[in-house]
Amino acid sequence: MMMNGKVIFVVLDGLGDLPVRELGWKTPLQHAKTPNLDYLADVGITGLIDIISPGVPPGSDSAHLALFGYDPIHEYPGRGPFEAAGYGFALEDNEVAFRVNFATVENVGKTLIVKDRRAGRISGEDAKELTESIKEITEIDGVEIKFAHTLEHRGVLIFKGENLSHEITDVDPHAINVPVLKSVPLKHAKNISAAEKTANIVNKWVKLVYEKLKDHPVNMKRKREGKLPAQIALPRGAGKRFSIESFSERWGFKPVGIAAGALYKGVARVLGFDLIDVPGATGLPNTDVYAKFKYAIDALKKYDFVFVHIKGTDTLSHKKDPLGKARFIEKIDNALEIIVDDIKRNDELTLLITGDHATPSKIGYHTGHPVPILIVGPNVRRDDIKMFNEFAVQKGGLGRILGQHIMQILLTYTGRALEYGLKVSSSSLRYIPHKWNALDF
Amino acid sequence: MMMNGKVIFVVLDGLGDLPVRELGWKTPLQHAKTPNLDYLADVGITGLIDIISPGVPPGSDSAHLALFGYDPIHEYPGRGPFEAAGYGFALEDNEVAFRVNFATVENVGKTLIVKDRRAGRISGEDAKELTESIKEITEIDGVEIKFAHTLEHRGVLIFKGENLSHEITDVDPHAINVPVLKSVPLKHAKNISAAEKTANIVNKWVKLVYEKLKDHPVNMKRKREGKLPAQIALPRGAGKRFSIESFSERWGFKPVGIAAGALYKGVARVLGFDLIDVPGATGLPNTDVYAKFKYAIDALKKYDFVFVHIKGTDTLSHKKDPLGKARFIEKIDNALEIIVDDIKRNDELTLLITGDHATPSKIGYHTGHPVPILIVGPNVRRDDIKMFNEFAVQKGGLGRILGQHIMQILLTYTGRALEYGLKVSSSSLRYIPHKWNALDF
Repeated sequence: MMMNGKVIFVVLDGLGDLPVRELGWKTPLQHAKTPNLDYLADVGITGLIDIISPGVPPGSDSAHLALFGYDPIHEYPGRGPFEAAGYGFALEDNEVAFRVNFATVENVGKTLIVKDRRAGRISGEDAKELTESIKEITEIDGVEIKFAHTLEHRGVLIFKGENLSHEITDVDPHAINVPVLKSVPLKHAKNISAAEKTANIVNKWVKLVYEKLKDHPVNMKRKREGKLPAQIALPRGAGKRFSIESFSERWGFKPVGIAAGALYKGVARVLGFDLIDVPGATGLPNTDVYAKFKYAIDALKKYDFVFVHIKGTDTLSHKKDPLGKARFIEKIDNALEIIVDDIKRNDELTLLITGDHATPSKIGYHTGHPVPILIVGPNVRRDDIKMFNEFAVQKGGLGRILGQHIMQILLTYTGRALEYGLKVSSSSLRYIPHKWNALDF
Repeated sequence: MMMNGKVIFVVLDGLGDLPVRELGWKTPLQHAKTPNLDYLADVGITGLIDIISPGVPPGSDSAHLALFGYDPIHEYPGRGPFEAAGYGFALEDNEVAFRVNFATVENVGKTLIVKDRRAGRISGEDAKELTESIKEITEIDGVEIKFAHTLEHRGVLIFKGENLSHEITDVDPHAINVPVLKSVPLKHAKNISAAEKTANIVNKWVKLVYEKLKDHPVNMKRKREGKLPAQIALPRGAGKRFSIESFSERWGFKPVGIAAGALYKGVARVLGFDLIDVPGATGLPNTDVYAKFKYAIDALKKYDFVFVHIKGTDTLSHKKDPLGKARFIEKIDNALEIIVDDIKRNDELTLLITGDHATPSKIGYHTGHPVPILIVGPNVRRDDIKMFNEFAVQKGGLGRILGQHIMQILLTYTGRALEYGLKVSSSSLRYIPHKWNALDF
């Protein structure tokens, strides 16, 4: 029996999909030619996972928490702290962090209607210049304010001061052709006065940002160029500093992450992963998938759990480009060759490939459909599924399981799982300890 | 993308079954000719649901709570309050409600042995006359007593007074050839003296009822006619007034119910459903199923969630009449034509058909076998199952899921589910809000 096996854990963001007319009523994953994924499905076990719970559309952060074996209901601090961590901000106790999107709006009287939640995926110099203007807002009602731009249309906002609360609603409506929302306390907020104070400051900040950006030269230029302006920044996912058991403490693996998106790095960093920057990895469909997989294999020398995140599948789904998604899946499949070669030789390696949620490319946002998964490795019970797609795996040997159960299954597949009820270490009840606390004689 | 889709939610009571010899070792659902159900299975997704939890035989009330997306363990107040609500009694804080069955007993010395828990499904004038006699009992030990007959052998009993408890055992043994039970406090009752007082009053009431009914002219007549007498009424499911989040608050749908049985109306009413009375709907196998489906389709104009309950499948199972059940299923299938026609034209409609529990017709009571389910709609991932029965759906694309997860899955299928972690409304965290709280600029 192989023990202390190693894992490559590949997340293809937004992988799950629905049949689309333009692909002959197939999903992008069905339509794509994927000899390597199909080979892996053939030699491995497959199934469907409900990342959070059946029918619940996951956010990318809570989805990754669940995939890494944390309870997404009880251990989820909100989006803001993850974005902050991804950027490198270490939150203090008196701070509240938000994820922020640059957005395109239309002014109809006293209400702003959201036309694009990503301002045409604004990036580069344009985003940088707008960020400089937003950074001029450094204080509201005695609360210190910090803002940073991360990737494309994304940013982080931090409030620092006494009596602040994260139990407030989002300004971002998460939909288009609806108004920019007024932040208010959540119905069951524990400290209503703190929540009211914080919500008021958020609302004031959003209005100040609009005043600064609505006629900003960058936006004037973008309009001339036929690009969508970013007249506003929409905060969401308020959250405070939180403590969470590290991934290595919980599961016994020494983990590393290979991801370009700030959020995915943030989740990994919060859980104590090391991070590897791969040249050519962009977090976009133009990313160098092959390089990421190559670095992943190299990383097995030093680490025993390698998380690889590929964002492009989700980006193309949000763009409602099913054919583009299928082509990108083919690019991934092609790059998988290097891992397939390795797994044929490496008796210690378990490979897992799944998504963090469905983003059907005809719908363009996250849905609660379950996500296909495949696992290949020396201790895996192979099933008779020979193709990797949303339909074939309905009959896979893993059945339909919860996202948060995968890590424990991987402990079994890597020969690391501790028999239930055993107490051979004061901290871990899940995995066979790496060190034994010997009795002196 | 379809958003705010509508749902017809059909519950065939006691649908699940087991193979029976007289149908060539097929289940009634397998034996019945069901072209419409099979068509729906073909174009939709199928699976098995454990209504409460695997192997747990659901009660009809807890089963419907679970199907409507409530936790049947932590949000279940007991049977009595649902029966009361179904009849139209609004419970007050100092009241305890019971479900009651007319029953046939045999006196063996000082003990009554239950021979039929439904007194031959007594109904009509007979039940009415016996009810008049029971209603003469209006007070015991200073506690006010109300009784009402609902449908067939069923009734509701209400105690009103100070210091009453619902934490007492049932008088109904829920089995035949065993004694009528003495009600006593539950072992862990919070207020033992209140429970003792209430149990004593229940026991006194049952004895008084027996005195009134044992030689009642109605029962003499029934015996002469070869029918089972109803010499007693057996209370069970004591419960108090309770508050529960309404269905529309929890799921965002505007719901209506089409049901004839008091309990099903009661559950729906408690959860804030409107109710439609359909001419010809009886809650019995002679019911007009077609009329119920026709009213369901009409109701889609005003409502976006239509619950249709069909009781006959369960009644025939309790009667241990598998062939009758198969014939009744064929009647349902025939009537389904009108919904099948609609779903072919209506891109907004999602149709769900399932049972609330298994009542195997060779066993005659509720069992913990999982129940077949099918769902058809625009956002459903079709599977390759082409027949609707307990066996074919074992390989369905939904897999095996819990009853309480169905509503969240329907949010996904109707384009209403809110991404997990989003806070766009102060109260709802599950569905996309109908109204947006705009920020003024």
